[in-house]
Amino acid sequence: MTSYVHGYSEKESCRLADQAGTLTELLHGDIGYPAGSRVLEAGCGVGAQTLTLSRSSPEARFECVDISKASLNAAQQMAANQRLANVTFRQGDIYRLPFRADSFDHVFVCFVLEHLSDPLEALIELRRVLKPGGTLIAIEGDHGSFYCHPQSRAADLAVQCLVNIQAKAGGDALIGRRLYPLLREAGYAGVAVFPRMVYVDASRPALVDGFTRKTFTAMVEGVKDQALEIGLIDRKTWDQGIADLYRTTQADGTFCYTFFKGVGIKR
Amino acid sequence: MTSYVHGYSEKESCRLADQAGTLTELLHGDIGYPAGSRVLEAGCGVGAQTLTLSRSSPEARFECVDISKASLNAAQQMAANQRLANVTFRQGDIYRLPFRADSFDHVFVCFVLEHLSDPLEALIELRRVLKPGGTLIAIEGDHGSFYCHPQSRAADLAVQCLVNIQAKAGGDALIGRRLYPLLREAGYAGVAVFPRMVYVDASRPALVDGFTRKTFTAMVEGVKDQALEIGLIDRKTWDQGIADLYRTTQADGTFCYTFFKGVGIKR
Repeated sequence: MTSYVHGYSEKESCRLADQAGTLTELLHGDIGYPAGSRVLEAGCGVGAQTLTLSRSSPEARFECVDISKASLNAAQQMAANQRLANVTFRQGDIYRLPFRADSFDHVFVCFVLEHLSDPLEALIELRRVLKPGGTLIAIEGDHGSFYCHPQSRAADLAVQCLVNIQAKAGGDALIGRRLYPLLREAGYAGVAVFPRMVYVDASRPALVDGFTRKTFTAMVEGVKDQALEIGLIDRKTWDQGIADLYRTTQADGTFCYTFFKGVGIKR
Repeated sequence: MTSYVHGYSEKESCRLADQAGTLTELLHGDIGYPAGSRVLEAGCGVGAQTLTLSRSSPEARFECVDISKASLNAAQQMAANQRLANVTFRQGDIYRLPFRADSFDHVFVCFVLEHLSDPLEALIELRRVLKPGGTLIAIEGDHGSFYCHPQSRAADLAVQCLVNIQAKAGGDALIGRRLYPLLREAGYAGVAVFPRMVYVDASRPALVDGFTRKTFTAMVEGVKDQALEIGLIDRKTWDQGIADLYRTTQADGTFCYTFFKGVGIKR
C-alpha cells in the first residue's frame, strides 16, 4: 500500500467533496454509463467521485473498491445519506483486485494513479478485470501544470513541496502528462487523452473560491507540517508562497491548472 | 520600437506560416467578422494571421498595420499571391496609430503584445481607435505553460532562454496569463479570457510535426546563437534541451502549451 499524501482527516474529506463539486462538469460532463452496465470504480476513497458517477448514470451499477477501510466507511455513510441505490463498496488492493478476469463493462479511476508507486501495474490489473470491448477512464492532475499571475517563485516552491512529498511517498504528482504512454504500455487500445484545463480569473468567482482557494491552495496547505518538518522549505518562503497563492484570487490575479482524462479500450 | 525576438529571416516567415496553419482552428475557429465591418489588425507582421482573417471573414475589410516596412512588404506580397481582396496594409506604430478615434468596428491583435515593453499603453491606444460597442480580440502565448514528458530540466532551461531574451528585449513571453488584468486595466468592458491549450501526443501526428517540431521547438532553436552569446546557457545544456524537446515527439512523448484568447468591449 502506498501512503496517501493528502491524509484521511475530516477536513480532507470536505476538501475532496468541494473539489468534486467544482470540477464535476469539467471532469464528468461527458461521462455516462449505459443502463445495466457493471462499472468498477477503483480507489473510490471517501466517495467524492462515486456520488457524481452514481447520479450521472443512475441505471448503471457501480462497484467501488478502496484499500482503506476508514475511507470505505466514510464512502458507505455518504452513499447511505445520499440514498445511492446503485453503488456497492468492497475493500481491495488495486494491484490484486478481488474480481475475476473480464468482470466489468467499464472501469473508472480518478485521482488514484498519482498516489501509486506502480501505476503501470495497476492499469494492467484494471485491464484484466475489464471485459473485452470495455473502456477504462483515468483522470489525473499534474501539479507541474500550475502557474499563476502575479508570478511567484515562493508559490512555485510551495507547490513543489507537494510534488516532492508525493514522490517520497512513491507517487507522481506530475502523472497527468504521462497518461498517454502509461495507457499504451498497459496494453489499452484506442488510447486518447484530453486535457481539462482550469483557468481562473475574477470573472469566474465560483472557481476562484471553489478551485483556487478551497481545492488547490487547501491541498498545498495540507502538506505544510510535513514540508517544514523534513526541511523541504523554510517557514518564511512557505508562508509567502501560500500568501501568493491567495493573492491570485484578487481582482487582477489569474490561476491555471490542468487535469488529464485518458480513455482506453480492452481489445 | 521594441526589438523583435524572433527576427525577420525567411526561415522565420515559414515558421510563422506553419504556426498559423496548425493553429488556425484552435485560435480562429470561433472568429467571424460581419459583412461590411471595418477591422484593424494591429501588428500583422508578415501576414500569417491576416490570411486566416481574410478568408474566415471574406465580407469584412481588414486594415493591417505593422511597424516594420520589411514585414509589410512580405505581407503585401502574400496578399497579392493569395488574391486577398479585403485587406489593406499601412505602416504604423501601435502606440500612436495613424487613425482617428472610434474608427474601427473591431480590433484583432495576435502574438504582438508579448513583444511590447508597454502592452497596457498599446491596449489603451487600440481602445481609442475602436468604436463604442466594438470588440478587441487579443491572442497571446505563455511560454511558462510549456511542459512535457519525458520531463527535462535541460528543455526547461532552453525554453527559459527564450523567456529571458524576450524580457531583455522589453517583452514578456509569459503574457498569456496576464491578459485578463491587462484588458481590464486598459478600460475594456465584459473582459473574458479563454485558454486554448495545445496537447500533443503520438495520436495527434499533425500537431507533433506542425506544433511541437515546426512551431515551438523551431522557435526555441531560433534564439540559440543569442542565448549562447550572452551566456544564458552552456552549449551542452542547450543541445540536450533541444534534443529533449525533439524526444517528446517519439511514440511515448507528450507536449503541452497554452495560448490565451482575450476579448473585451469598448463601452
